[in-house]
Amino acid sequence: MSDAISFYFDFSSPYAYFAALQADDLAWRSGREVAWKAIMIGSAFRASGNKPLVDQPIKGAYARHDWERVARLINAPYRMPDRFPVASLAPSRAFWWLADRDQALAQRFAKAVFHAYFAEGEDISDLALVVQLGRTVGIDPAALEAAAQDAVWKQRLKDETETAIEQGVFGSPFFVVDGEGFWGADRMAMVEDWAKRGGW
Amino acid sequence: MSDAISFYFDFSSPYAYFAALQADDLAWRSGREVAWKAIMIGSAFRASGNKPLVDQPIKGAYARHDWERVARLINAPYRMPDRFPVASLAPSRAFWWLADRDQALAQRFAKAVFHAYFAEGEDISDLALVVQLGRTVGIDPAALEAAAQDAVWKQRLKDETETAIEQGVFGSPFFVVDGEGFWGADRMAMVEDWAKRGGW
Repeated sequence: MSDAISFYFDFSSPYAYFAALQADDLAWRSGREVAWKAIMIGSAFRASGNKPLVDQPIKGAYARHDWERVARLINAPYRMPDRFPVASLAPSRAFWWLADRDQALAQRFAKAVFHAYFAEGEDISDLALVVQLGRTVGIDPAALEAAAQDAVWKQRLKDETETAIEQGVFGSPFFVVDGEGFWGADRMAMVEDWAKRGGW
Repeated sequence: MSDAISFYFDFSSPYAYFAALQADDLAWRSGREVAWKAIMIGSAFRASGNKPLVDQPIKGAYARHDWERVARLINAPYRMPDRFPVASLAPSRAFWWLADRDQALAQRFAKAVFHAYFAEGEDISDLALVVQLGRTVGIDPAALEAAAQDAVWKQRLKDETETAIEQGVFGSPFFVVDGEGFWGADRMAMVEDWAKRGGW
């Protein structure tokens, strides 16, 4: 079996949400696993000199409009969260704690987080909410609450972000297949093509 | 007949070259004219705070690699020009002089310029080369040479760039269909979809 496709995302990124909604399709169409990897994109921005889209004149307004229409195009439930962007530390740390035990469970949790933020507009920086979201996918609340504050998982998220940056990740979402990096939800068709053909 | 799709490009932009190679397909598939519009993307960058890709750490290296693989994917003749980017004033002014007389001829000229730069690696900032390229598509050399230096067409290029910026153009290529803007060659399928359906 071929290597997994790495799917790097920040929970605070609308384009990552749209990519997440299409990640399972990418997996079964390409015949590869898609390994979800939460990162703190702000750290990658510091390395590349990038800024959040909404902090950029003209491009920021374009992006807000684009998120609305892309959501309509792919029939994604979507509303701009009142608090945007937010620091996604709590769900990201919890994600890595789960990913080590069970990738499938970690993905279900990640989907619940994305949905809460971009479909319901809830504040995913709030640990109490994150614990509640975990409960909806069967995760023990006390264990999740502890993990999200544990130095081990704080460090793990830092390390995973650092590794991503070393792989050339500079935006969210970002895919790596067989060492080849692709930036953006718009590139998922190319990622699929590369994965199937082993490059071109 | 529906309104034309505006296709904004800077002759110095590799992604605009890839879009140009697919612009005729966009036209006949969508049943709309595609109106080619040369602009000076540097002016739009000043308005939006953007920088040329190759001046950005990490993203610049990604872009150079991406141009190579996108060229392979779409079977485009491509080599990185030795001089890159260049100021594309001469061909852009000549383009507008031609576009006023004959859009089809202006497009043939634009294709010759893109090909010279990105397939042959020639220096399209050189007026003598631009005149020679015009000759290959049947344009009188003396008239083109005069037009490219005429204050009227210098101003026209400035005005067209200004108008583009007012329409929200901040990158190259950029498409506008029925007032809806789309940034990037990656969005051509969406542009086609929007053009056919009149939005979504």
